[in-house]
Amino acid sequence: MSTEPSSTTPTATDTVPAPRFGVWLIGARGSVATTAVAGCAAVAAGLHPPTGMVTETTPFTDSGLPSLSSLVFGGHDTVDCPLPKRAEHLAAGGVLPHGLPSAVHTELTAADREIRPGGPLPGRDDDRTTDALIDTFAADLTDFVRRENLAGAVVVNVASTEPAPPDGHLPPSSLYAAAALRAGCPYVNFTPSTGLHHPALSEQAATAPVPHAGRDGKTGQTLLRSVLGPMFLQRALDVRAWSGTNLLGGGDGAALADPAAAAAKNAGKERVLADTLGAAPQGEVHIDDVPALGDWKTAWDHIAFDGFLGARMVLQTTWQGCDSVLAAPLVLDLARLLLRAHSVGLTGPRPELGFYFKDPDQGASSSLGEQYAALVDFAGRLRGRS
Amino acid sequence: MSTEPSSTTPTATDTVPAPRFGVWLIGARGSVATTAVAGCAAVAAGLHPPTGMVTETTPFTDSGLPSLSSLVFGGHDTVDCPLPKRAEHLAAGGVLPHGLPSAVHTELTAADREIRPGGPLPGRDDDRTTDALIDTFAADLTDFVRRENLAGAVVVNVASTEPAPPDGHLPPSSLYAAAALRAGCPYVNFTPSTGLHHPALSEQAATAPVPHAGRDGKTGQTLLRSVLGPMFLQRALDVRAWSGTNLLGGGDGAALADPAAAAAKNAGKERVLADTLGAAPQGEVHIDDVPALGDWKTAWDHIAFDGFLGARMVLQTTWQGCDSVLAAPLVLDLARLLLRAHSVGLTGPRPELGFYFKDPDQGASSSLGEQYAALVDFAGRLRGRS
Amino acid sequence: MSTEPSSTTPTATDTVPAPRFGVWLIGARGSVATTAVAGCAAVAAGLHPPTGMVTETTPFTDSGLPSLSSLVFGGHDTVDCPLPKRAEHLAAGGVLPHGLPSAVHTELTAADREIRPGGPLPGRDDDRTTDALIDTFAADLTDFVRRENLAGAVVVNVASTEPAPPDGHLPPSSLYAAAALRAGCPYVNFTPSTGLHHPALSEQAATAPVPHAGRDGKTGQTLLRSVLGPMFLQRALDVRAWSGTNLLGGGDGAALADPAAAAAKNAGKERVLADTLGAAPQGEVHIDDVPALGDWKTAWDHIAFDGFLGARMVLQTTWQGCDSVLAAPLVLDLARLLLRAHSVGLTGPRPELGFYFKDPDQGASSSLGEQYAALVDFAGRLRGRS
Amino acid sequence: MSTEPSSTTPTATDTVPAPRFGVWLIGARGSVATTAVAGCAAVAAGLHPPTGMVTETTPFTDSGLPSLSSLVFGGHDTVDCPLPKRAEHLAAGGVLPHGLPSAVHTELTAADREIRPGGPLPGRDDDRTTDALIDTFAADLTDFVRRENLAGAVVVNVASTEPAPPDGHLPPSSLYAAAALRAGCPYVNFTPSTGLHHPALSEQAATAPVPHAGRDGKTGQTLLRSVLGPMFLQRALDVRAWSGTNLLGGGDGAALADPAAAAAKNAGKERVLADTLGAAPQGEVHIDDVPALGDWKTAWDHIAFDGFLGARMVLQTTWQGCDSVLAAPLVLDLARLLLRAHSVGLTGPRPELGFYFKDPDQGASSSLGEQYAALVDFAGRLRGRS
Repeated sequence: MSTEPSSTTPTATDTVPAPRFGVWLIGARGSVATTAVAGCAAVAAGLHPPTGMVTETTPFTDSGLPSLSSLVFGGHDTVDCPLPKRAEHLAAGGVLPHGLPSAVHTELTAADREIRPGGPLPGRDDDRTTDALIDTFAADLTDFVRRENLAGAVVVNVASTEPAPPDGHLPPSSLYAAAALRAGCPYVNFTPSTGLHHPALSEQAATAPVPHAGRDGKTGQTLLRSVLGPMFLQRALDVRAWSGTNLLGGGDGAALADPAAAAAKNAGKERVLADTLGAAPQGEVHIDDVPALGDWKTAWDHIAFDGFLGARMVLQTTWQGCDSVLAAPLVLDLARLLLRAHSVGLTGPRPELGFYFKDPDQGASSSLGEQYAALVDFAGRLRGRS
Repeated sequence: MSTEPSSTTPTATDTVPAPRFGVWLIGARGSVATTAVAGCAAVAAGLHPPTGMVTETTPFTDSGLPSLSSLVFGGHDTVDCPLPKRAEHLAAGGVLPHGLPSAVHTELTAADREIRPGGPLPGRDDDRTTDALIDTFAADLTDFVRRENLAGAVVVNVASTEPAPPDGHLPPSSLYAAAALRAGCPYVNFTPSTGLHHPALSEQAATAPVPHAGRDGKTGQTLLRSVLGPMFLQRALDVRAWSGTNLLGGGDGAALADPAAAAAKNAGKERVLADTLGAAPQGEVHIDDVPALGDWKTAWDHIAFDGFLGARMVLQTTWQGCDSVLAAPLVLDLARLLLRAHSVGLTGPRPELGFYFKDPDQGASSSLGEQYAALVDFAGRLRGRS
Repeated sequence: MSTEPSSTTPTATDTVPAPRFGVWLIGARGSVATTAVAGCAAVAAGLHPPTGMVTETTPFTDSGLPSLSSLVFGGHDTVDCPLPKRAEHLAAGGVLPHGLPSAVHTELTAADREIRPGGPLPGRDDDRTTDALIDTFAADLTDFVRRENLAGAVVVNVASTEPAPPDGHLPPSSLYAAAALRAGCPYVNFTPSTGLHHPALSEQAATAPVPHAGRDGKTGQTLLRSVLGPMFLQRALDVRAWSGTNLLGGGDGAALADPAAAAAKNAGKERVLADTLGAAPQGEVHIDDVPALGDWKTAWDHIAFDGFLGARMVLQTTWQGCDSVLAAPLVLDLARLLLRAHSVGLTGPRPELGFYFKDPDQGASSSLGEQYAALVDFAGRLRGRS
Repeated sequence: MSTEPSSTTPTATDTVPAPRFGVWLIGARGSVATTAVAGCAAVAAGLHPPTGMVTETTPFTDSGLPSLSSLVFGGHDTVDCPLPKRAEHLAAGGVLPHGLPSAVHTELTAADREIRPGGPLPGRDDDRTTDALIDTFAADLTDFVRRENLAGAVVVNVASTEPAPPDGHLPPSSLYAAAALRAGCPYVNFTPSTGLHHPALSEQAATAPVPHAGRDGKTGQTLLRSVLGPMFLQRALDVRAWSGTNLLGGGDGAALADPAAAAAKNAGKERVLADTLGAAPQGEVHIDDVPALGDWKTAWDHIAFDGFLGARMVLQTTWQGCDSVLAAPLVLDLARLLLRAHSVGLTGPRPELGFYFKDPDQGASSSLGEQYAALVDFAGRLRGRS
């Protein structure tokens, strides 16, 4: 016998709205963040296919990932340029399709309202303590979750690469990472910056009650290296020298013109080779700021290798891509995967996501093929869990 | 009647010489064969490290493969140029190191003595039947095994690519393949020629009491494609067009200037892309005969792909290598693997060796990473068997 | 007290409007023509600098060339797509800047009104004689000049490359060329099509009372070849092989997928090398239709050359450009130069314009540097003449 | 009054041997010098055609240049490795053909005997004054001319690039240059080192009674730039950025790993672009020491340029060559040209030889085409003079 109330009462499925999840971007007004916010809206609205989003492919169909339309964006940034204006700038530079900024103006404006001032940078006319800054950032996150009535939120660092910090100091990227943990949010470090890789945070990172992943997204030249390196190794060919030059403009080009930032970036690139090949071959990596190229990057690699009986052979690759365009769908992937991992109770570092990173969490393979297998396996583990 | 004293009687381990194995090369005076024979001798003598030989890497240590010094070479060819002279020619062209032909002159001469005339080509002033030709070739093989007192022999086709045969006829590559089966020898087809892939041989191939593998060794451009294709697929990037141009001289360049031979070769290259990406992208493959390049090949690939929101990006690769140098160590690998597989009783097509081929036996993955995993697994299965 | 004549009488400078000149484009609705019309308007209006227009550089300052704002466009075409729509399509493909089609909509519409149907193609359901067709085309030209009250008009062929014609027949490009002569207009053949290079027209061409120039504009790969070829020659380096592959989509890609059209195009490319180097080196040229590339072309060249003591060296070039964008400013250059040459009474073939062509008129150098010197000299000769 | 006996006196044609000329190389045991000495002998003996020697082409036929067989080599160097051994090393690295060192062993040994110790480097445990060092070097030269009974000698600097000197000091390259003038010998600076470009030598250089030329031979990447730069300029295309990376091993790679030496080298490369294009575009030049490449260099250039209506286009070049092989024939050219110029009484800087240099003497064009025209003109001026 039914005790249901009157028929005009909405049913459970009517009344409970689908849960919404927050994506809190550190560097929320940068190229990657803007492309991620605009692109998420465009794909959710069916304006574009989800090219470049791994989580929209078959192995992830039943993994219970939050839908793109359930994502709500916010973040920290130290600059003021509103997201709609930033998006127009990216469209003028050929990063976003013409017409897209106006098509997703509503979503860009909504995300822009949820951006809070980052920093101030510790030590520069800011007398707040490190702990007070972390508290402020964590409060920004908690407020976001409450205000937007979210089922959870993930923090993703997509800010410009910061120079390696002086000993002892927590650099800004680490403050934001600590704030994520303090607010109980999963955390992704898509940059080579320190983030959770700081001695003062290592215990917290290892035992965090939330999942986290990093670091340093691999989008172009290093992505290539992570498949070519294993190829040479598996074929027992002897890589003698691997040299590379990257040309790029835009904000990234300017940021990496700082030798300290470039050093942090290059360390990741070289690590992939050393991890893959067993030892680092000869050769250097250059990152040149070429403003005329805007947000488009050209990466040339020259690989000198020896074959049977010492024969000298060469492979050269030239990659012409746009880092923001390559990074944005991976940022959406990672946000969804970490949000889902959090829901099902996974915690601590997730080497299963090494597919996305130059410097993955301990335990990950350095071969893209094996990393992909681990990712697909992870997709299976997320399935069928509540 | 022997009067020898007992103590000087050799023990069993003294008296039983290590078994020796035959490698019978179809196209035994070509560049690949000459490089394989010279290189095997050089590596066995410690003159060169085994760069490019996968079977000399760790996963194969205990797989019971015949040692390089146990291999005895012979084969069929239709040309007369003696192997030592051919080797000098290759050294002059930079394929073999200067000095190597004289260092391994003994081994080259020994192999040359075991080369028998191939053909005559059926239908050209040769009134022997197909069956008689197969019988002749099989007898050459059996004589080789008996004369050299071998524990077994493997047949490897490294002859020039032949045009696709007219319906019904068994082309030469199939005659040699049938002869291998008739003589009870394992068989490897390193070329795109028909070999066992002929309707008239399909039942024999499927039920052969010997192991066999093919076809069409992947050494350069296609090797690259077999790692780059999966990379694009795994990253959900949309490959729009994949175009390629190969420049090469030498005998291979001239042979592939024949459009029919080039078509057979290109089919393999395009198959790898279609297999990997799910569908063949736009784009053509050219093979140009450029005599000035000698045995060295340059392969340029241009890959146009779309990323997030339809952004157009490009990867270009330029591969400069020597096909003979790339192929020879793989030929030695395959000979050893098939000889061992035969010893332990494995029979029929071996998709586990797909790592080596553009058009592997049914059941093989098209991704190099997965093919490598299958190969390492196979190495394990060869271990600990008698 | 004023002694000026009545205020309503126009002064001399008021009454004589600046002369206007016609540019009649064969293939007036193609990419090159559309870009030329839109670009002329944009530069004349100060929306863009005249990048790529040689006639806007210092050596031409006082040569008396018609100004860009004095040019009036019309032409023949066999397709219907209106110029404004065609321009939108080019902007969507990144050939024209976004916003340009609407900024110059008036000029595109004006030019579109002056386009007359080309053909019908002789021999295809068209019983007009060759002579009648020429008459019709010439009348279209004469009407254009009268209707627009022009001081003169130049005919420029920018239509798709046509296959080499069968013996005896005048192909369409020759009909239009003959019409230009009949109407007393200077003529430029920017394509590899026959134009005035037909035996039946050779006497007319040699003795024409109007200046003409051709053929086959050099915009990318061949432009490069015309500076690299002389470099190798001047340095006494021995070019062994020069191989090239062109990838392009758009209408041009499709047209050149026709082997006969490609053959005509390639003949020009190879002629430049043979002319420059003294003999044609080894190597082929491919033109592949890759629709995914749209109007953008990638041309890869591989040059194998020998140095001192036979050392083998290689230069590779990769050119990524847009043919329409490269051709359009040269078309405007040529139109202005021929109009001015006509004004000052120059007639017949003009080898001084070899700078612009793959297959210049007899007497031109094949080295770009020398061609440029001849062009600058020509600019001087146009100066100070009435 | 002569007392010579009549009958036994040989006739004039018997008694007067053809004059011989000295080529004194600074850095006489380096790769360039060794290649020049070995190559001169090989070409003189007809073992190789004179590929890469401009002075062996038609325009120089009657210019009265000393024949290759009349050249006698000597020089200064601070290292001990004998020339025949150095040549063997170059042959092993593929710079010289195998077999050449033994074929020209006599000539290498003869040249080796005429090599004198260079330095000691001023200021490093050497208390000789600058003037005394110049005297010593000049005496070495004078002795060489007398001992070998030469009709004249030219000094050519082919030593490793030296860092830019501190203010006031004469660096070693300048000491050798001053010694050449003091000994009355023509002088060529094929390197970017200071040589005669020192304030303390400027007056001497301007008024020298001998001809001299420099500096910084252009052999590869810069040679290309000197034809591509004018091409862009003549076509009114807007070069936005020109970036370059050089990979090389060998002694040059190691020397240029010194940032100060690299800076001197790069200054020359960038000067060519600035001179050609009017202003230096964006972009950097890297020189990486990659020992695995030996004496072979790979230079990649990436040129971003704008065309009509701001369309962005790209040219990339990859140059794979051997600097010693490219430089050696030019060194022979320059030696012959300066010796002849001296014979006919030409003095001071010779901008007519700008064809050979990155940083030519004042008055030279920066376009290779114009430089070649000036060189051919110079060949004419050398003709018909006694």
